[in-house]
Amino acid sequence: MISRKKNSTAPPDLQVCETFHAAIELIGKRWSGAVISVLMKGANRFKDLRDSIPGVSDRLLIERLKDLEEAGIISRTVLPSRPPQVTYNLTDKGRALTPVLEAISTWGHAWNK
Amino acid sequence: MISRKKNSTAPPDLQVCETFHAAIELIGKRWSGAVISVLMKGANRFKDLRDSIPGVSDRLLIERLKDLEEAGIISRTVLPSRPPQVTYNLTDKGRALTPVLEAISTWGHAWNK
Repeated sequence: MISRKKNSTAPPDLQVCETFHAAIELIGKRWSGAVISVLMKGANRFKDLRDSIPGVSDRLLIERLKDLEEAGIISRTVLPSRPPQVTYNLTDKGRALTPVLEAISTWGHAWNK
Repeated sequence: MISRKKNSTAPPDLQVCETFHAAIELIGKRWSGAVISVLMKGANRFKDLRDSIPGVSDRLLIERLKDLEEAGIISRTVLPSRPPQVTYNLTDKGRALTPVLEAISTWGHAWNK
């Protein structure tokens, strides 16, 4: 039933926008939204992040924090205390996601009660 | 370095909101955002969806369309033609995602050029 013609493409005005697609795949990656949301609420230590997100494993949280740091959404600071204390904070790029998270929250509460 | 105390929890005001989390995990699932975006642009046949989203496989597109239908975000209509024609459309709940997609697009274009 489903065949793919070579070089078939939809009209240009229907094509998914690559910039949009990259953005939603980045922030939609499993646990990313939760991490960003909890950082916005003021958590900034690993333990607080982990305890604020039920179900996330240490391994996946570490992985996702690295992804978000590489994407420029969070920064990681190591304080030279004993033992060293690590904190995570949203960058300007990360804080600029506030309207996105608000829109998702509004939609969620309206339609997925 | 990382130890998890039994029953440790973050202060209630830091906890991730479950409704928000479920919403971002749903629309952030791989290809979901692209599919919703392309439906918003007016595509409604399987072929058009597939051709509008470079890189998606038939199998994953079928799977994601089923997920979105189960979540009440899209509807699937089978027209009694020969051969039967299947179309996909956003429901009210799906169209209500417009502000979410707009916010993501705005952020993407501002920060991921």
